[in-house]
Amino acid sequence: MAAGPVWSVDPRTGKQREQVAVEATAQEVDTVVRAAHAARGALADRTVRAAFLRSAAAALEAARGGLVETADAETALGPTRLSGELARTVYQLRAFAGIVDEGAFLDVVIDHPDDTATPPVPDLRRYKVPLGVVAVYSASNFPFAFSVAGGDTASALAAGCPVVVKAHPDHPALSELVAKVLRRAAAEHGVPEGVVGLVHGFEAGVELIRHPLVAAAGFTGSVRGGRALFDAAAARPVPIPFHGELGSLNPVLVTEAAVAERAEEIGAGLAGSMTLGVGQFCVKPGLVLVPSGAAGDRLVKSLTDAVSDTEAGVLLDHRMRDDFVAGVAGRTRLPGVDSPVTPGAGGEHTVSAGFLTLPADRLTEEGAYDLLLEECFGPVTVVARYADDAEARAVLGRLPGNLTATVQLSSEEAAGQGRGAEILAELTPLAGRVLVNGWPTGVAVAPAQHHGGPYPATTSTSTSVGGTAIERWLRPVAYQNAPQALLPPELRDDNPLGLPRRFNGALER
Amino acid sequence: MAAGPVWSVDPRTGKQREQVAVEATAQEVDTVVRAAHAARGALADRTVRAAFLRSAAAALEAARGGLVETADAETALGPTRLSGELARTVYQLRAFAGIVDEGAFLDVVIDHPDDTATPPVPDLRRYKVPLGVVAVYSASNFPFAFSVAGGDTASALAAGCPVVVKAHPDHPALSELVAKVLRRAAAEHGVPEGVVGLVHGFEAGVELIRHPLVAAAGFTGSVRGGRALFDAAAARPVPIPFHGELGSLNPVLVTEAAVAERAEEIGAGLAGSMTLGVGQFCVKPGLVLVPSGAAGDRLVKSLTDAVSDTEAGVLLDHRMRDDFVAGVAGRTRLPGVDSPVTPGAGGEHTVSAGFLTLPADRLTEEGAYDLLLEECFGPVTVVARYADDAEARAVLGRLPGNLTATVQLSSEEAAGQGRGAEILAELTPLAGRVLVNGWPTGVAVAPAQHHGGPYPATTSTSTSVGGTAIERWLRPVAYQNAPQALLPPELRDDNPLGLPRRFNGALER
Repeated sequence: MAAGPVWSVDPRTGKQREQVAVEATAQEVDTVVRAAHAARGALADRTVRAAFLRSAAAALEAARGGLVETADAETALGPTRLSGELARTVYQLRAFAGIVDEGAFLDVVIDHPDDTATPPVPDLRRYKVPLGVVAVYSASNFPFAFSVAGGDTASALAAGCPVVVKAHPDHPALSELVAKVLRRAAAEHGVPEGVVGLVHGFEAGVELIRHPLVAAAGFTGSVRGGRALFDAAAARPVPIPFHGELGSLNPVLVTEAAVAERAEEIGAGLAGSMTLGVGQFCVKPGLVLVPSGAAGDRLVKSLTDAVSDTEAGVLLDHRMRDDFVAGVAGRTRLPGVDSPVTPGAGGEHTVSAGFLTLPADRLTEEGAYDLLLEECFGPVTVVARYADDAEARAVLGRLPGNLTATVQLSSEEAAGQGRGAEILAELTPLAGRVLVNGWPTGVAVAPAQHHGGPYPATTSTSTSVGGTAIERWLRPVAYQNAPQALLPPELRDDNPLGLPRRFNGALER
Repeated sequence: MAAGPVWSVDPRTGKQREQVAVEATAQEVDTVVRAAHAARGALADRTVRAAFLRSAAAALEAARGGLVETADAETALGPTRLSGELARTVYQLRAFAGIVDEGAFLDVVIDHPDDTATPPVPDLRRYKVPLGVVAVYSASNFPFAFSVAGGDTASALAAGCPVVVKAHPDHPALSELVAKVLRRAAAEHGVPEGVVGLVHGFEAGVELIRHPLVAAAGFTGSVRGGRALFDAAAARPVPIPFHGELGSLNPVLVTEAAVAERAEEIGAGLAGSMTLGVGQFCVKPGLVLVPSGAAGDRLVKSLTDAVSDTEAGVLLDHRMRDDFVAGVAGRTRLPGVDSPVTPGAGGEHTVSAGFLTLPADRLTEEGAYDLLLEECFGPVTVVARYADDAEARAVLGRLPGNLTATVQLSSEEAAGQGRGAEILAELTPLAGRVLVNGWPTGVAVAPAQHHGGPYPATTSTSTSVGGTAIERWLRPVAYQNAPQALLPPELRDDNPLGLPRRFNGALER
């Protein structure tokens, strides 16, 4: 098929800014993937990988001004947010450099021969090796942190895997700029520039997932797009791991005691979280279970006040704006659904925040109200008023998988009096991150982070944020009776690299 | 559909021994899965899990006589091999009990708040929780170690997951006996007997993978059967992880120097490995690259002598015997393929071992000879004679993924002179276990073991043998700002259970 032009568009006006590139043909995708594959040897040395990641971080920082300006022009996310996101991206690259240095991710396990085992154990030494070229599908809503130099790329490079990024059409100019920064950083360390490939175009993304030299994929986006690519990855002659982050409702449960204690505070906190970044976060709280009764009414009042004060905002693109307006309309139309602050079209290019309420019992059985259990991207949330704990539990029991689940507890419940621990246990099956008295927006980059959850939150059990994200791009290999002289240094008895490992059963640090 | 009878069959005669059960209907599968799901709470306590696994081990040992007798009657694998396999199974159950006690598999990571991070880090605590009910598809060729009480079941129970086993039709009577032993062991510790479900029948296996309450699956078997189930797992509304071990050629490379040094020893070793258990091992060496020339001829002579002396054996069932005879015939028919010892039908119910030879250059390009790059289950291997290193490498470059890859090196090469380390690096992309101067048959149960490999060896990057097999049945969950009083003991600062963990970035043991 003909390769179409790739335009950078200003979402504040809907106007084309410039033509950035053309969509990649199948042959171009092949060339880019082969170049990435050819670069894998240069990543084999962990010292080089760590240095490359640090140079990339420094170079992104140095280029901050131009990058943020371009990002803002394409996404309307604003310089403050985008500067913060770039800082986060830089921090993340450095964090992965540290992870490469430490080497715990190699999961070194060494067993000396043991004739007393059944059957006897030979000399066995296991560690993890990179899978190969990783396809990275960028997110619309995080032009830095989940795109060309984002968590998938950083963790893949840290693992020793070259990447080919499918740019998101919402920020193609930024994608080109960031890719150039990464490539220059690679070249500084003798790594071929092909180690970070970049392609544009929907068809190119489909070609990419099918390419025989692509060994794994990371994705952040919609349920529909992610599932299509997941299906394509599974249907390959050689299926590959597909780590997709697709969609999440991020339920919040407010207990009776919590709302009695601080209805206003919770209402205001919720307003801040659901409208942050014009509601364009995968961890936006999309369903909030609030007790019926006077205290719950105060929460709704506080939410109403705060959301009414929120200015209209620009969504990432006009298709997203149309989907938001249509999604809100479909939900508002359901009998029994009220909209104390009506979300929707705010102007020619903007949308206004709002929220819906309904009795929670509408959600306890399959039916038309299931629409409210689906993510609606943008500044809207659904407040379901529950009569008692059983009703709240019944709604939670119907939810698909989530990235997060949150509970608002009273001080006494948080101190261990009441059902707090029990509620935590009940929320655990629903999500990959469970929060107490906080809000799910804001995903820290930390060793203990888990940004993933039961399907459709993610298509695998892995995380796309935090130290363990590196695990997605590795596979173990064991060497049996290999002489010390032939072993990679990581697996030698004398541990010349000082790696943490399990040695004859015992954990060594 | 009507539920057919399930017969136990004697492969030595092809005669039905007894009717063991009937095939499970969809409704019966549902009942069994629901019973398993209901039992998951009883596995939440790790102390209970470890005690249950140890009781199961002891009970299997106590029942050894009857179990081995039944297994032999159904599989013809012989009491010696079966006794050894039962001992291995018992050892494995105890090893997983030890793994449960230690708790390293929980992967506990704790981060205290850090305002200096970008963005700031809240209190985050991550560990792993069980996925839910695991479907286990038993193997034909390991009635103990990869069946009802095998590695998938042991690792799943250790992880806290109930199992529903699809019995293999080659040993239904044994499957029933072993399931009973496991259930009695469960009951001793207050765990409902439904924690180990058992179903018979092809259709039941299909129902099982589609059941909404099944959260993951383990499989050992053929590429065709495994791929069909993998596809079904991926096509579910909620896809689930499918850890299948499907097929492997297990290539062996014999270097010029090695064959010059010990042609006869290698030939005899190969004969032993490829005929072990009538060639019915997933790690049977199925393709051996031997230098052309006189030393290589001596290897072939030694192999000829040893294989000629091998007695005819009984395969696990008559369908397998038919497939073996047909598979050998199709391969022998190819021009240029010789059979120094012709494998095939050995008697009415037996097969005889043999091997094929051909010039390696036939295998370097796609074509009719690709049949020789597919696994042929039973006592046959292919010896490809190569002219030089480049030719050997060209053949290796065409292989699909494998469980194992082996190199036979000379003493000097093993000591680090020559291409030994380079060859190890070349074999690593091909397989999950790389052996030096050994044979791939025999898979030790050890922390460093990796029994898996690139597709079609396995459908995931995990292992089905060794300590890390437990990882397949877990997913991480992180708790954010959860008060100490509400946290599970595994995640508390004071570490009351003494678990190994990563605490504020540092590894603690």
